[in-house]
Amino acid sequence: MNNPMNTAAHPERTREEWQHLDRQHHLHPFTDFKELAGKGSRIISRAEGAYVWDVDGHQILDGMAGLWCVNVGYGRKEIADAVYTQMQQLPYYNNFFQTAHPPAIELARQLTELAPRFKQVFFTGSGSEANDTVLRMIWRYWQLQDQPQRRVVISRKNAYHGSTLGGASLGGFGVVHEQMGTLIPDIVHINQPYWYGEGQDMSPEEFGLLRARELRDTIEEIGADKVAAFIGEPIQGAGGVIIPPATYWPEIQKICDEYGILLVTDEVICGFGRTGEWFGADYFGVKPDLMPVAKGITSGYIPLGGVMVSERVSDVLMGDAGEFYHGFTYSGHPVACAAALANLAILRQEHLVTRIRDDIGPYLQQQLRTLQAHPLVGEVRGLGLFGAIELVADKASHRRFDSKQGVGMRCREHCFQNGLIMRAVSDTMIIAPPFILSHAQVDELVSKAWKCLDLTARSIAG
Amino acid sequence: MNNPMNTAAHPERTREEWQHLDRQHHLHPFTDFKELAGKGSRIISRAEGAYVWDVDGHQILDGMAGLWCVNVGYGRKEIADAVYTQMQQLPYYNNFFQTAHPPAIELARQLTELAPRFKQVFFTGSGSEANDTVLRMIWRYWQLQDQPQRRVVISRKNAYHGSTLGGASLGGFGVVHEQMGTLIPDIVHINQPYWYGEGQDMSPEEFGLLRARELRDTIEEIGADKVAAFIGEPIQGAGGVIIPPATYWPEIQKICDEYGILLVTDEVICGFGRTGEWFGADYFGVKPDLMPVAKGITSGYIPLGGVMVSERVSDVLMGDAGEFYHGFTYSGHPVACAAALANLAILRQEHLVTRIRDDIGPYLQQQLRTLQAHPLVGEVRGLGLFGAIELVADKASHRRFDSKQGVGMRCREHCFQNGLIMRAVSDTMIIAPPFILSHAQVDELVSKAWKCLDLTARSIAG
Repeated sequence: MNNPMNTAAHPERTREEWQHLDRQHHLHPFTDFKELAGKGSRIISRAEGAYVWDVDGHQILDGMAGLWCVNVGYGRKEIADAVYTQMQQLPYYNNFFQTAHPPAIELARQLTELAPRFKQVFFTGSGSEANDTVLRMIWRYWQLQDQPQRRVVISRKNAYHGSTLGGASLGGFGVVHEQMGTLIPDIVHINQPYWYGEGQDMSPEEFGLLRARELRDTIEEIGADKVAAFIGEPIQGAGGVIIPPATYWPEIQKICDEYGILLVTDEVICGFGRTGEWFGADYFGVKPDLMPVAKGITSGYIPLGGVMVSERVSDVLMGDAGEFYHGFTYSGHPVACAAALANLAILRQEHLVTRIRDDIGPYLQQQLRTLQAHPLVGEVRGLGLFGAIELVADKASHRRFDSKQGVGMRCREHCFQNGLIMRAVSDTMIIAPPFILSHAQVDELVSKAWKCLDLTARSIAG
Repeated sequence: MNNPMNTAAHPERTREEWQHLDRQHHLHPFTDFKELAGKGSRIISRAEGAYVWDVDGHQILDGMAGLWCVNVGYGRKEIADAVYTQMQQLPYYNNFFQTAHPPAIELARQLTELAPRFKQVFFTGSGSEANDTVLRMIWRYWQLQDQPQRRVVISRKNAYHGSTLGGASLGGFGVVHEQMGTLIPDIVHINQPYWYGEGQDMSPEEFGLLRARELRDTIEEIGADKVAAFIGEPIQGAGGVIIPPATYWPEIQKICDEYGILLVTDEVICGFGRTGEWFGADYFGVKPDLMPVAKGITSGYIPLGGVMVSERVSDVLMGDAGEFYHGFTYSGHPVACAAALANLAILRQEHLVTRIRDDIGPYLQQQLRTLQAHPLVGEVRGLGLFGAIELVADKASHRRFDSKQGVGMRCREHCFQNGLIMRAVSDTMIIAPPFILSHAQVDELVSKAWKCLDLTARSIAG
């Protein structure tokens, strides 16, 4: 780890001091504030490659690439250099009022080159804002098509589309909806293609078709002339790395085509290579009309999001449509776009996406499958650099633990203590490591995972 | 302007090439895409201090500080250095899952020091996300107070609170609501304290009270037990720099106190010094329970937003509340927080906020008032580094132009052609220049404004 000059804007402090100030002043996302205040945060202070370090100097293999985003790994001087240059040249300017700047334009051009179905990009500051933008575009599209009654957007249970009111309404988490109290009107949730959790009484192929065909039933139920769009993550991320059976997406595509409704693939997690293709839609061979993106677009180095807009939609929005009353101060932020351009250059120059398809993806999947032999493991699944390990109370019957036991959380804690970051989604441990993971780091990840599964099993037994 | 090594991630191109690619691939925020495609964007390529330059080398005085955000001016190497260091140390890590990092903690600490009513900060990526977060917090607060029926948030017509569905629903722009088709339920809009536009038949003081008391009437009408909160920008920004009469905010405070509803001041524009006080709430002497912030927090150098949370609210959220199911990947992004820390250091070290109160603010206001003598000007108003110039067809009667004439837009265009950025809100020209504006630059701004008012008058006559 290079040790840059101390131009850091924060002073040196001990772990206890950081934890104290954190407790006093910092409300964390998706957190039980009281529980965390009692316990104290783990303070992450630096990172390099696939590792992060806490203030006590513990080295931790980051199996989640930050939060599905640090795809090119930490410490990329190329991105820091591009940001440093851009920030001195033009640290901010807006794209409102008929102005634009080179970084946003060049990034828009490169994105449409990577995803040639899409001719236009609308920038946002995050995946959440991108999904809000998707809703605005869907509704505007149908207004302009003289079908303003087409309002309903069909999403799925256990989907994640961000945390704005729009994003969280599209998302399919009951506990979130309960806290919101109100959902955005006109959003309907159908069942997810989660074979291990909900479909084991039939083949994955049959189950994939069954779940896709719920879309048709729901459209018919609502009335085909009222339905505007379907949205889905190619692979559900925060829902627990749910990989749909191969029959699912082609059937969804067929139904969207048949009814003429817009198809949206939320590429915030899948986009920019994690499946081994540039976008999840490429991997599954579907042709979306809109693609929200974020995270991997900059490898998380600077916040940025956007919506890729196909000609079907942009032709309408660019017609005699008047002003589209939507956008963000940071839409196409020049420094964020410069970070994205440097990030895309790394992905291309180091062939990181084909490396996932041909080399490190298959190797990770092969090694990860060895965990299937562990007594705690019901299923290991994965694809590209996605992985999920389902922990069960009974391997044969796939019986789950009582959720009160918090087995996934215990496992996450053991991982952290033993130098590995895995995320717990209930009792499913998930991973999404950086693309630069070496073969040795795959081995390290899998052997640490085995050890932590052992520790988890022991702590349940004790 | 220093000329950093060319590590820029984008190639050199001519204006025509940039315009072509922009037209082909880039959907701008709040834009009529067809109109812009016909015309071509102005390409801004660099900036320094209070000036931006387009690719043709035209130097333009930026009277809008980007978009109410580049408060410390362009080209601040201190911020670039802090970002460069942080990006090599820890370019990203999340604050989910009981982890945190020094930049987010230190920034939270410093923010609560600047606004001592507030003990806690919840970070977001933008002002829009901050206002979505405000809605989530308001609703959660009343759920936890066993008053879940308190849902209604009262906002104002012509308010701006961002462009997510939450933010745009809080906002009071009819054209936006029409395009959305659906608003978030439980949001109600009362009239704004816009004396010049709507209150000239009485004194500003009487009018301020009248408009504030609409809050009471509306609460009574809805039912006091159903109302959760009131939200307002201390000074409405995008609505046209609407400065409420002095009687307005104290009366709003009184009514909120009387009914026990939460008071939210949206500080996305006012926050971090533009009024000459650190926050708009300080300027007007109100005591908000929540304050969304963004823009000036980093001077726009990196996207960042947040919500300042008073003890009244944080005590409840931090009680036996369980998990708060809300947050963003980029909540407390370490590089954005490092930029904010460097930005706050500049504001403090250069005494930029007191400079607005004691020196450059009064000077700008004094000079700006000279425009009142122009035949096209109905009112000049301003405060701190806010300014508004209302263009009218008849100075004596304050009769406005037919909106079809697009007088404000014409004036904006003349300004751009003549080296000055002012924004048009219908026929109100508004400014919000960087805090580092010199006295000479105030003179330049005002003399260019006069010239462009002349050109506008001539183009109308012609």
